[in-house]
Amino acid sequence: MQTYVPFDARAPKSRLAEALSPAERGTLARTMLADVLAGLAALDREPTVLATDAVDVDASVRVDDRPLTPAVNDVLAEADGPVAVVMADLPLATPAALERLYAPDADVVLAPGRGGGTNALVARGPAFRVDYHGASIRDHRAAAQAVDATVAEVDSARLATDVDAPADLVEVLLHGRGEAADYLREIGFSVALTGDRVTAARDNEST
Amino acid sequence: MQTYVPFDARAPKSRLAEALSPAERGTLARTMLADVLAGLAALDREPTVLATDAVDVDASVRVDDRPLTPAVNDVLAEADGPVAVVMADLPLATPAALERLYAPDADVVLAPGRGGGTNALVARGPAFRVDYHGASIRDHRAAAQAVDATVAEVDSARLATDVDAPADLVEVLLHGRGEAADYLREIGFSVALTGDRVTAARDNEST
Repeated sequence: MQTYVPFDARAPKSRLAEALSPAERGTLARTMLADVLAGLAALDREPTVLATDAVDVDASVRVDDRPLTPAVNDVLAEADGPVAVVMADLPLATPAALERLYAPDADVVLAPGRGGGTNALVARGPAFRVDYHGASIRDHRAAAQAVDATVAEVDSARLATDVDAPADLVEVLLHGRGEAADYLREIGFSVALTGDRVTAARDNEST
Repeated sequence: MQTYVPFDARAPKSRLAEALSPAERGTLARTMLADVLAGLAALDREPTVLATDAVDVDASVRVDDRPLTPAVNDVLAEADGPVAVVMADLPLATPAALERLYAPDADVVLAPGRGGGTNALVARGPAFRVDYHGASIRDHRAAAQAVDATVAEVDSARLATDVDAPADLVEVLLHGRGEAADYLREIGFSVALTGDRVTAARDNEST
């Protein structure tokens, strides 16, 4: 099965601006992509990065500068077999978690993201199309039903954890085992207790 | 295996105050508890609610008015076999998700909660003790290691989703299938798009 990992090489992660500089957000995005690619490589999947611009990664790259939805839908329209689409901002995606995406024998497999997104999916059969805007998990359930596709959902916290807001960073520190977790520690982040809340706090000496 | 569901009958969910009245928070807490108990009942587990005060539920109740950690540790100390502890604020906990808690053949099984918590666990063997303060998932990993217990973690978004802040409510609307989701809809909540974010918005006529 061909696996695509969409990656926005241009405008990474603006919601993280209050926690990270633009350069740091770019580096974090690349380490998260590396973690996802490493997880797929451990499963002997050979992913293609579907990037908005040329990007230097250890995988083949298909450049498409359009928004996510049309870029992915072109991939789905062209495919002559099943296709997997795995988001690039899933630094907790271990091989074991990713393997669960490929396991169900359903026409459409959906891995929900926290906050209504669809962090990974598999489409078997040519009719299913994506729409990543808004509460995409709900739209993708409906889209699968509209083409009479059977649907399975993957109940994985690792696949549900996309990183796009400061509150997500502590998840990487608590559960990450890859480059993104290492990078956050390197630039001074650690797990802290703020009142009753567990957060990623930054060591002032590193800022 | 004996399963305990801790439930705070007195001070439910203060972080939800900006979204729900005190009475609504109480009702939501009880519907979430009902969802967890229904999930366990579907697995033929016979849970005991470990409540801070008398509570009218379809399960046996053990009253212990102390904080969570000592109440659970007394249960663990008294047990003469494996014990499961499942939090009461997990309205996405389907039978399939809960079943995964009981499956691993490890001395300690941990289901992390979002934000560093431990939303469910199984302890086989008498030595393991809990400490729910702060980043408990990290402390529980260390506590298991300290007593030479083997550890497995359950990678479940459903078990990771405890509801204690307004941002959690949309998860219930998107993925819940039980009383808590019905109740939120009944009092006027629905999935909305606010800018790029998917949120639980409330119909003004119902407030």
